[in-house]
Amino acid sequence: MEKFKAILGLVQKQQTTLSFGFVALFTVGGEHIFSSVVFRCPCSSWNFLYGCVFLLVPSLVLLLLGYLLNSKTWRLLTGCCMNTSKIFKMNNICGTVKVLVQITVNALVAPLTWVAVALLHGSYYECAMTGFNNTAYIHKVCDGKSKCFQDFHKLPCDGKSSLSASDREDVLLAIRAQSQVLGWMLIASIMAVALAFTCVTRCCSPVSFLQFKFWMSYMHQENELFESLATEHAKNLAQQNIRIFFESTEAPTMETPDNKAWEKIS
Amino acid sequence: MEKFKAILGLVQKQQTTLSFGFVALFTVGGEHIFSSVVFRCPCSSWNFLYGCVFLLVPSLVLLLLGYLLNSKTWRLLTGCCMNTSKIFKMNNICGTVKVLVQITVNALVAPLTWVAVALLHGSYYECAMTGFNNTAYIHKVCDGKSKCFQDFHKLPCDGKSSLSASDREDVLLAIRAQSQVLGWMLIASIMAVALAFTCVTRCCSPVSFLQFKFWMSYMHQENELFESLATEHAKNLAQQNIRIFFESTEAPTMETPDNKAWEKIS
Amino acid sequence: MEKFKAILGLVQKQQTTLSFGFVALFTVGGEHIFSSVVFRCPCSSWNFLYGCVFLLVPSLVLLLLGYLLNSKTWRLLTGCCMNTSKIFKMNNICGTVKVLVQITVNALVAPLTWVAVALLHGSYYECAMTGFNNTAYIHKVCDGKSKCFQDFHKLPCDGKSSLSASDREDVLLAIRAQSQVLGWMLIASIMAVALAFTCVTRCCSPVSFLQFKFWMSYMHQENELFESLATEHAKNLAQQNIRIFFESTEAPTMETPDNKAWEKIS
Repeated sequence: MEKFKAILGLVQKQQTTLSFGFVALFTVGGEHIFSSVVFRCPCSSWNFLYGCVFLLVPSLVLLLLGYLLNSKTWRLLTGCCMNTSKIFKMNNICGTVKVLVQITVNALVAPLTWVAVALLHGSYYECAMTGFNNTAYIHKVCDGKSKCFQDFHKLPCDGKSSLSASDREDVLLAIRAQSQVLGWMLIASIMAVALAFTCVTRCCSPVSFLQFKFWMSYMHQENELFESLATEHAKNLAQQNIRIFFESTEAPTMETPDNKAWEKIS
Repeated sequence: MEKFKAILGLVQKQQTTLSFGFVALFTVGGEHIFSSVVFRCPCSSWNFLYGCVFLLVPSLVLLLLGYLLNSKTWRLLTGCCMNTSKIFKMNNICGTVKVLVQITVNALVAPLTWVAVALLHGSYYECAMTGFNNTAYIHKVCDGKSKCFQDFHKLPCDGKSSLSASDREDVLLAIRAQSQVLGWMLIASIMAVALAFTCVTRCCSPVSFLQFKFWMSYMHQENELFESLATEHAKNLAQQNIRIFFESTEAPTMETPDNKAWEKIS
Repeated sequence: MEKFKAILGLVQKQQTTLSFGFVALFTVGGEHIFSSVVFRCPCSSWNFLYGCVFLLVPSLVLLLLGYLLNSKTWRLLTGCCMNTSKIFKMNNICGTVKVLVQITVNALVAPLTWVAVALLHGSYYECAMTGFNNTAYIHKVCDGKSKCFQDFHKLPCDGKSSLSASDREDVLLAIRAQSQVLGWMLIASIMAVALAFTCVTRCCSPVSFLQFKFWMSYMHQENELFESLATEHAKNLAQQNIRIFFESTEAPTMETPDNKAWEKIS
């Protein structure tokens, strides 16, 4: 039982890492389903558009979804039109940018995973590049194979191109290899940027490591407590108002913190 | 046990997101069943109508169902004929429009999912477009293939058109690619609009984030309490009235809030 | 039950070893999945780049991930820009280097496992070396076989090269043997370095073995106690602040250790 609690504690501590992992895992699963069930390269001049749409639009959708589902976005935006000073005060611009960057980093996990996995899988890139009308690129990939140039966009479809099976496979393997190399480069650069970024932010933090941990824990506790107290307060207020309605009595008004106080703690 | 409660709390917090997800999931399932079991393209001049009906009418049905099953619709409409001032009072029009927009957004989840999934699947669009009598479109898709022009509406049915199998597949793949590109565009634009819309509404809210959360919680509590108290009140009233009937005694009349009070809190 | 506790105690004592083992195991599994599902040698002039990318880039990614997930990295870096003296004080440089080495050792487990397992498996090395344009190397591996020289980069793909099946297998077996010998060398040298390194550090430690164990146990205990106390302190602070907000009362401020004290214990 104690060990179980320890594991739960560990899970709670590594929440961010774990949630990133889960998001990435779901994205990998989704990509696999899409590329095997929905995706079928048209093998025509549409190739480039079709491949790019499957490579990039889902990641755009995931990015927007990431912004939409992050409560920090709304904590930042709620009421900011009524109260522009909240954002544009000199000492707040820095904080706003910091929160925006945080939100963006969280929102970027899923789309980058999608692109990386799609590149490692290779089929979207294959379809897109066979519709890419760049003579130099086609010459380099075709490598002198006859009929490759005019049938280039028919390569991803089995049994359509007039090339020999082995020539076709050569070209496809070359394109897929490019895709996978690009995928690994993307993953490596994401990791490098993530490491550098975390280093710089942590390095510039005005507090030391344990104090940082303490404040994280404090914020977590404050959030939880605030929520439970707010719920209780709301319950009491509702109970009172409804009793007034049914019993037609006048009750002493309960005090609720005013708007200014709310803004200050938000 | 504590962890279980935490999960339940999380589910309750993310209610809207989860319910949207469930509606979308059911729609995806429904679309899959319909397109595989019920849908069979007629391969005649009926194609366009048939495809459009399967693409659009179910989404219309889902939209109407969305309005029908949303309790907010009835909260808004009940008694508004008797009491037109309720809607057309100057300071109320804005609120009415706001509630209408909220209801529409909720009702649009299912129909938009239907259209998006149907476009990604491609079979409805394929059937509709092969019946689409636009010469320029047919020329572009046929791309100079012989017999394609006159047999265009027979393409979706296997073994009916006089085209060679590979030519037929080319054309169908092109149409399906269009359908899927349109589907992704639709999904991306829905997400973009949703994000922009939520941003603007949240931004213009007069209260800050935590206060907003507090009022949401208050409204939830009030609703629950009101329901339980109303049920109790109704029970007492019924008990009293029936006792009066059987025992033919006169009991002190129980007070119920009058119509005006009811209207005010609705 | 007693036996179970004994096992748990053993697990706790050997934590480092076990976590190293788990990381290595996961890496082995990942390598197996990648080399069987994703990896397909292009059999062209791309071979060398492709093979090297699969051999080295994942290990680079794992190394960066190792740094990123190690809390010691952040304990060292947090706030070090604000407070350069923390690192560059004379008596601290030695400690900083020591911690950096510790972090690096931990971070190196996964990447070295990847490289070692990939070399033992052999397919990445095989692909890379058949694209390695070194005449002397090709002559030595081909060993006078006809057509081997010009078809060298087509060897990893079955049925592509014009060599006889037995000649092809000879060459591939030779390359794979090199790969596996290299893999064993790598593993042996890692072990040797690890042993030597631990010997030297332990040997130079100013305390004896039992004292060392005692200090390890003390640090572990201190960490745990500190965490639980910090959490409690954070909880009390949060409770107080929120009560002030809702009840609009002024409370006596609770004392929290100041920045300097935090830095000192970090």
